[in-house]
Amino acid sequence: MADTNWPSCCRSLKGVVLDMCGVLYDSGEGDGVAIPGSIEAVQRLKASDLQLRFCTNETQATREKFVAKLQRLGFDISVSEVFPPAPAVVAVLKQRGLRPHLLVYDGVLPEFDSIDKTNPNCVVIGDAAENFSYQNLNEAFRVLVGLEKPVLFSMGQGRYYKETDGLKLDVGVFMKALEYACDLEAEVIGKPSPMFFQTVLGDMNLQPHEALMIGDDLVNDVGGAQHCGMKGVQVRTGKYRPSDERHPTVTADGTVDNLAQAVDMILAQRGH
Amino acid sequence: MADTNWPSCCRSLKGVVLDMCGVLYDSGEGDGVAIPGSIEAVQRLKASDLQLRFCTNETQATREKFVAKLQRLGFDISVSEVFPPAPAVVAVLKQRGLRPHLLVYDGVLPEFDSIDKTNPNCVVIGDAAENFSYQNLNEAFRVLVGLEKPVLFSMGQGRYYKETDGLKLDVGVFMKALEYACDLEAEVIGKPSPMFFQTVLGDMNLQPHEALMIGDDLVNDVGGAQHCGMKGVQVRTGKYRPSDERHPTVTADGTVDNLAQAVDMILAQRGH
Repeated sequence: MADTNWPSCCRSLKGVVLDMCGVLYDSGEGDGVAIPGSIEAVQRLKASDLQLRFCTNETQATREKFVAKLQRLGFDISVSEVFPPAPAVVAVLKQRGLRPHLLVYDGVLPEFDSIDKTNPNCVVIGDAAENFSYQNLNEAFRVLVGLEKPVLFSMGQGRYYKETDGLKLDVGVFMKALEYACDLEAEVIGKPSPMFFQTVLGDMNLQPHEALMIGDDLVNDVGGAQHCGMKGVQVRTGKYRPSDERHPTVTADGTVDNLAQAVDMILAQRGH
Repeated sequence: MADTNWPSCCRSLKGVVLDMCGVLYDSGEGDGVAIPGSIEAVQRLKASDLQLRFCTNETQATREKFVAKLQRLGFDISVSEVFPPAPAVVAVLKQRGLRPHLLVYDGVLPEFDSIDKTNPNCVVIGDAAENFSYQNLNEAFRVLVGLEKPVLFSMGQGRYYKETDGLKLDVGVFMKALEYACDLEAEVIGKPSPMFFQTVLGDMNLQPHEALMIGDDLVNDVGGAQHCGMKGVQVRTGKYRPSDERHPTVTADGTVDNLAQAVDMILAQRGH
């Protein structure tokens, strides 16, 4: 049963922000698979008077390759509509004159081509998956422990995500590992960082209360957006688990079966 | 400069407990290397009227193989004097009827031969080193997340240790990773768990104030022992770092250059 109270706020809505993995598609072998109804749901939002952006903690590919994958799955999405953490990290590194040691997935490396990586004075981690080997974690640890003021950037802080063959540990788990090893606190770039949501809102030129986030991650998508003043709705796809609906600190403004149902309810409120 | 106040407590001392890696030897290729003076220091303690035990968070080998390695390095040590976490975990598993999924180093597996491991209802991690692969961590995570009441045992909670080729991440780092992934708190078996020190004290039939712990790990050896009512002295070998001497919460009763110096000072107080 979907919550029936939240859609009323959609009458004054001006923009929708969608999480991608677990909302649009499930990742896995090859390109993964589109979640039924999501391709049409994106089309219907685009045909409406709402602005639409995509906000993802995806860090396994460059933005270009990631968007190309979504297009192959059938989604009408362009690069300028998609906000992943890597370009945001590159901006911060340049601004602060930092040279990273990267512990990331090979596919995202080209995003860092323009950055000096010699004699590193910080560490950047993303969802490195199989690259989270004991050896690579030791290497990142040794860089950090050798710095007078160790700085660790984490592209997101997710606990796990769902691939077609099961749940997999996400970057946040290895962020916590290195935080404990080095007795430091990482700087998170990506959801649920308020700065990250603000960038997307700024791109739409909207105030937080004018935008709605839809995601499968209760804490990072829904909680992060709410913390920013946006509404947050959770879908029962992707990494959703029934226990999310009795979470001790985060309560979604609404919970729906999938993106298609969310879009039905939003557009119905707006007389579409 | 060694602290010159602590040795006076040694006049009433009845037993000494030694950490092993970083105090007796440095691990690394092959058997590792004995720390200069430590072989003779153990001999001198054994020749004194003090009781002597060895308390280690070593979980890469069975107790028998571990002791055989120390003997090859030249130490006069027998199996019954050495207290590692694995036998303590096996006792707890049997007592509570738990069947473990093991994420440990291959060498320690025989310690768990007597335990039913089918259809696991808990996870046990040790210093698995290279076995801490992304795939193995995912497997342990999936076992935990599939249990109604997930139980995680960690054999120690160390951050890192020193091998001859550099610092390496210890089991505590991966304990924190799985704790975050599953939103649970692990049960630590090994130092600094008070129960673990109590077992060693019980074996010597001593009260805490009658025993002194000597280790290279300020938090787990020194702090753990002090928390139990024992005295704790840190050696400047193994994983010792100068910043340990201005640690915000743990202050050693004494800091010495190495085990040989500690034993010199202890025995001098006792008129040897």
